[in-house]
Amino acid sequence: MFREKIKVFDCTIRDGGLINNHDFDDRFVREVYKALSAAGVDYMEIGYKNSRKLFSGKEFGKWKFCDDDDIRKVIDGVPSKTKISVMVDVGRVDVEDVKPRKDSPVSMIRVASYVKDIDKAIYLVNHFADKGYETTVNIMAISRALDNELNEALHQLEKECKAEVIYIVDSFGALYQESTEFLVKKFKSILKSKEIGMHAHNNQQLAFANTIEAIIHNANYMDATVYGLGRAAGNCPLELLIGFLKNPKFDIRPILDLISKEFVPLREKMEWGYVIPYAITGMLDEHPKSAIALRESDKKENYREFYESLAAGLD
Amino acid sequence: MFREKIKVFDCTIRDGGLINNHDFDDRFVREVYKALSAAGVDYMEIGYKNSRKLFSGKEFGKWKFCDDDDIRKVIDGVPSKTKISVMVDVGRVDVEDVKPRKDSPVSMIRVASYVKDIDKAIYLVNHFADKGYETTVNIMAISRALDNELNEALHQLEKECKAEVIYIVDSFGALYQESTEFLVKKFKSILKSKEIGMHAHNNQQLAFANTIEAIIHNANYMDATVYGLGRAAGNCPLELLIGFLKNPKFDIRPILDLISKEFVPLREKMEWGYVIPYAITGMLDEHPKSAIALRESDKKENYREFYESLAAGLD
Repeated sequence: MFREKIKVFDCTIRDGGLINNHDFDDRFVREVYKALSAAGVDYMEIGYKNSRKLFSGKEFGKWKFCDDDDIRKVIDGVPSKTKISVMVDVGRVDVEDVKPRKDSPVSMIRVASYVKDIDKAIYLVNHFADKGYETTVNIMAISRALDNELNEALHQLEKECKAEVIYIVDSFGALYQESTEFLVKKFKSILKSKEIGMHAHNNQQLAFANTIEAIIHNANYMDATVYGLGRAAGNCPLELLIGFLKNPKFDIRPILDLISKEFVPLREKMEWGYVIPYAITGMLDEHPKSAIALRESDKKENYREFYESLAAGLD
Repeated sequence: MFREKIKVFDCTIRDGGLINNHDFDDRFVREVYKALSAAGVDYMEIGYKNSRKLFSGKEFGKWKFCDDDDIRKVIDGVPSKTKISVMVDVGRVDVEDVKPRKDSPVSMIRVASYVKDIDKAIYLVNHFADKGYETTVNIMAISRALDNELNEALHQLEKECKAEVIYIVDSFGALYQESTEFLVKKFKSILKSKEIGMHAHNNQQLAFANTIEAIIHNANYMDATVYGLGRAAGNCPLELLIGFLKNPKFDIRPILDLISKEFVPLREKMEWGYVIPYAITGMLDEHPKSAIALRESDKKENYREFYESLAAGLD
């Protein structure tokens, strides 16, 4: 029997955009939107809503800014129940850029925050909620959060924040199933009026497993990306998640088509997935940036030296 | 705190041999043995002990037969505590080919069997045990086993079989964590005098997760392969398993070296791992052979049609 409350949240274009400076072309984004819509996916996150005062439109593609008109261009005319989401980072958004929901193609705004910035995140979320948006707070780098600080942040979110969903974000791909279980249970026990979400990274080939683990313990918002596309090791593959879920509203076939036609060729040009340096940063609970730098260097296959330098850095 | 009873069992050359007719050259096999030995891996399975009356040495490489002298050639002179294992399939071995353990470089013989062949497997195991070998029974295609037949086989193994270890073999990569938990608990409850082993396949990127799940529920023999090498989607990656385990006797670094030098180049020539048709057979609880055939055809990227034909075949 399926659990109707489970929502499948695709963030292919948003997390994948971290690889190519958010520069996917309109045709590609529209193909993704069409496939997600046909597959019955609940949400599609299309990029970040960053301030153009902080980032240059010459350096970054349009999905770094997600202007309403750019979104309309790729979704208009497609039959769809899939809602559009954009992400904002604490400190990088100009709230005046965000129109009321009734004037925008965006349904949801997700605020990404470290534990230490939770007050800023709450301010942003409440502002967007007042403008009519569905909202979430996505707590990044959760594997590094100190328990007392995390607890305080969760109590504060429960009391002060209008977000409907609070996400566990395993930014470093460091969680195992037992740590996922521990965190979901903690979130559930404190956030009694909220839904819990899971955003996993695939450094140790555990993104899908940790997503299942979160479902088992009653998280209901599950992030995934087509073919696992995402920065470094990427994310929970959407096709596996849809293959697992029992709700008959989901149809895997449009996603399989999309992978054949768009993502297999893309993988030839862009690297993501199971690559040993990303596995190493996951094991060591480190940000993947050192591994990304390694993969762009002429030492890209020198795994042992990379492991030793990183392990020594933990002393 | 680590659990000393956990044994890491490498089957890179054996399971990988299913891709290339067991034709790895001596240099490569020796490099693997050296790295596993330096890493502290407990067992290395080097191939199958098949009868030369049934299979031709012209068609298959030497690791289809595992003559003692061929094994000695690749291990002699390497400082090692890693024990050598060979696998036999019910109905394909000539028991007279197997010398007493004291005259052989082999320490363990694993008998692979379907539930229906369990009587034959017990006969073989008891014969090899009497010759002095450590033994296991590996129950294949476990995701398809009917519960009453599996229960009967397990009771019989507990009563009649000399094997120290009984393995759960997820041949189709179809198990999720909850099914793994169910099976390990069942095995533990019936096989009170045995250790439990886990051999996972990676069709749905769950081989490592299911291996962890089996560890959580007190399985102690964990199969893995270097860089996940193995037929179709491959297996639990050894490097991830070693990264996870806390026993200080394990050292990941020789495995990282081996992957850099041998397995990254090998992956350019040989296909295994996360490939959508293998994910599809896993989801549908099917043998990967149809997906392997697809990958050798000119429809290799036609995922949707493959899914539809396989799903229709289940009607």
